[in-house]
Amino acid sequence: MNAYEALRPLLEPRSVVVVGISRSGKQGAVFLQGLLDPGFKGNLYVVNPAADEIMGVKAYPSIAALPETPDLAVLTLPSEASIQVVAECAARGVPGAAMFTAGFDELGTEEGRERGRRLMAAAAGRVRLIGPNGMGVYNPRRGIAFFPGMASAAGGLGLISQSGSLAQFAVHAAVNRGLAFSKAVSMGNQIDLNAADYLEYFAADPETRAICAYIEGVPDGRRFRRALEQAAAAKPVVIWKSGRVAAGARAARSHTGQLAGDYAIWQAMARQAGAVLVRELEEMIDTVTAAMAFAGASARGRRIAIMTGPGGPAVSASDACEEAGLELATLSPATTEALREIIAPAGTSVNNPVDVGMVLQGAAEFYGRCLRLALADENVDAAVVIGGERGNMEGFARMLADVRRESSKPVMYALSDDFGPNPTTPLLAQGDVATAPSAERCLRAYARLAVR
Amino acid sequence: MNAYEALRPLLEPRSVVVVGISRSGKQGAVFLQGLLDPGFKGNLYVVNPAADEIMGVKAYPSIAALPETPDLAVLTLPSEASIQVVAECAARGVPGAAMFTAGFDELGTEEGRERGRRLMAAAAGRVRLIGPNGMGVYNPRRGIAFFPGMASAAGGLGLISQSGSLAQFAVHAAVNRGLAFSKAVSMGNQIDLNAADYLEYFAADPETRAICAYIEGVPDGRRFRRALEQAAAAKPVVIWKSGRVAAGARAARSHTGQLAGDYAIWQAMARQAGAVLVRELEEMIDTVTAAMAFAGASARGRRIAIMTGPGGPAVSASDACEEAGLELATLSPATTEALREIIAPAGTSVNNPVDVGMVLQGAAEFYGRCLRLALADENVDAAVVIGGERGNMEGFARMLADVRRESSKPVMYALSDDFGPNPTTPLLAQGDVATAPSAERCLRAYARLAVR
Repeated sequence: MNAYEALRPLLEPRSVVVVGISRSGKQGAVFLQGLLDPGFKGNLYVVNPAADEIMGVKAYPSIAALPETPDLAVLTLPSEASIQVVAECAARGVPGAAMFTAGFDELGTEEGRERGRRLMAAAAGRVRLIGPNGMGVYNPRRGIAFFPGMASAAGGLGLISQSGSLAQFAVHAAVNRGLAFSKAVSMGNQIDLNAADYLEYFAADPETRAICAYIEGVPDGRRFRRALEQAAAAKPVVIWKSGRVAAGARAARSHTGQLAGDYAIWQAMARQAGAVLVRELEEMIDTVTAAMAFAGASARGRRIAIMTGPGGPAVSASDACEEAGLELATLSPATTEALREIIAPAGTSVNNPVDVGMVLQGAAEFYGRCLRLALADENVDAAVVIGGERGNMEGFARMLADVRRESSKPVMYALSDDFGPNPTTPLLAQGDVATAPSAERCLRAYARLAVR
Repeated sequence: MNAYEALRPLLEPRSVVVVGISRSGKQGAVFLQGLLDPGFKGNLYVVNPAADEIMGVKAYPSIAALPETPDLAVLTLPSEASIQVVAECAARGVPGAAMFTAGFDELGTEEGRERGRRLMAAAAGRVRLIGPNGMGVYNPRRGIAFFPGMASAAGGLGLISQSGSLAQFAVHAAVNRGLAFSKAVSMGNQIDLNAADYLEYFAADPETRAICAYIEGVPDGRRFRRALEQAAAAKPVVIWKSGRVAAGARAARSHTGQLAGDYAIWQAMARQAGAVLVRELEEMIDTVTAAMAFAGASARGRRIAIMTGPGGPAVSASDACEEAGLELATLSPATTEALREIIAPAGTSVNNPVDVGMVLQGAAEFYGRCLRLALADENVDAAVVIGGERGNMEGFARMLADVRRESSKPVMYALSDDFGPNPTTPLLAQGDVATAPSAERCLRAYARLAVR
């Protein structure tokens, strides 16, 4: 059984049991709520010997007493108790357990490592473990969340995170950018299943179009390298590797018990595999937003057209273009002539960066005409758009999606949220238009994907 | 008369005339509204020979016919007509004119340059010109805005911008970060008054605590260098220089007619003057937010304490700390012992980065106790705080401001707006707590100011 088939019961479970919620529902209730709130599409059970039901879910005294063998056990128990429940899961044939529980290898003590060995012995090679010390699984299609209140829309982004809090931040940041997830997994200490397993799963998962991962360290570098090569050959993979320098490596060891490894090796590995390495959350979200939008784009060249109304951002974007290893496209004479016919003569530019001027009414339509001309130019590989139409943000977003669809070249849009969040990010993401909070960040994200 | 006294009538006018609004109020009305909306604290006039009043403001047929000599004329006229009105201002003794009008040197044509020469001749050394091709003045204390809807709160940040749109974006971004402005000036082509004049003004202005500037080029490098040295000796100066590389320099020439100059010279000049160079809007806002917060702080060392609840961000912040040229402070044994007495034993760390663990209730109070211990440590120069208290954001902000006030060491706070904008940014800014959207950006901003 390959990793994809092996992990399907864990990441796409049809039945889940939650173990460790107190009868009052005070302890651990958030994990049950994370299944109730999004409306888990399957059978849901609770194990608690002292209760008949908890929060409306029927409770059973033990794993053995459940009316069916669940696909996944979610454990929110102290470390010793969780070992015992994992042994019960192994006896019953439960294929997977997601463990929030901390107190294993990440302690950095012999006691913690010993407890980890006993946990693995209890699993007996039959129960595959997510975690411990993680948030488990987010699968909006099946109605599973880390906790209540997470986005219910399903999409094509897969996330692997060694940190539970960063899994949560990354999901929110991506959703704010209009993206939606196939699945996210908070892998914690990787005591059993590790980044390589999840990469293999996401590489094969037809619901996942692009993969991003926050990784502090991996237990088996060679296996990870093979999995990364396979995954990056199948779809875009963006890796945020922390523990790059001594200070971060020490923090990673204390956080999830990971050996961070030499960052130069990670850089070489990513380059060879064709994966993208990033250094922080903003870079990861910018890059994976672009990767999702560019998945169907034909061109990946360096020659960028910048199209703007405001002047200053175009100057700074021109700098960023060159500093990112890209170049300002030289528009063909036919394109500049065509632009000259429609763009006003004063305070504008028909050369790249193309400055369409102050267009108050009908900016969406006017930008659209200019952008189509620029993208039709054989000297242009991709375009960055700056500006918009204040009273018609939806129309502007639809125009960008239309132009992107027609031209098949990558289109990026600088969101500029200085006037508040842009409510059209889902429209833009669904229209395969890449976005970032500035033209500079659009360009750096493009360069990470296009210039390698 | 020094630059401060010379510019006061322009940047702090007691009387303003707006010239160029059509009788219907359609053309140029936004500039009058930018005085009416914030409630300009002074006498306000309009010149229009065809109207008795426009938008409730009494109109006069000419500059000569005004009942008093205004401090500032705001011109929203075509380029040729504006030259004539500037001549009228010179005859009347109006000390300054802010010109939105484009069509001068930035055209890059001999016609444009010639028009610029005639404009300067009309000013006759008596009318000092802001612009042309700029948005003019924002002075919330006096009730002057670029346009309606700008923040009415006054504060200590001074802004100089060569781009009108970036002046607008920078004001909004800074206000979102909780900052407030003394004055902002959109200097356009700098045909007369230039960056050196404004720097001299802001250096002497008692209402201004820190200065930031977006600059594409300056007409007189030597004079600018002297002004920068003076200003940076008086208060923090953060300069976003664009036109750094060939692509940007060409764009700058087309945008405001500037010669961008050699960036290596700018780097040397900033280093010698003690000013900070940044590369984009986000960096400028992060850095000037920190500069405002650190103005009264005693320490500027490299040794940083990181205090967190969520684990992953602390690992990434540790990397960023070292990559920015800072170091993770080694806490003294007395500090780690004192932390050990109050921090729970499992899933936490009493070493730096200090992980206080999952604190759901009373996080503000608990973080406060831990943060006071860390800042009292002589091995710690400054602290970055990650996390917060979801239901008590205001209490958390007040705690940070209290701790900052007591310790006199810089305190930074990673905002993490993944759950929406943080409404406490004004409290944090007023409490001299530096903020940025991530710990990584906090640390880079600190390093720009502390490591030089």
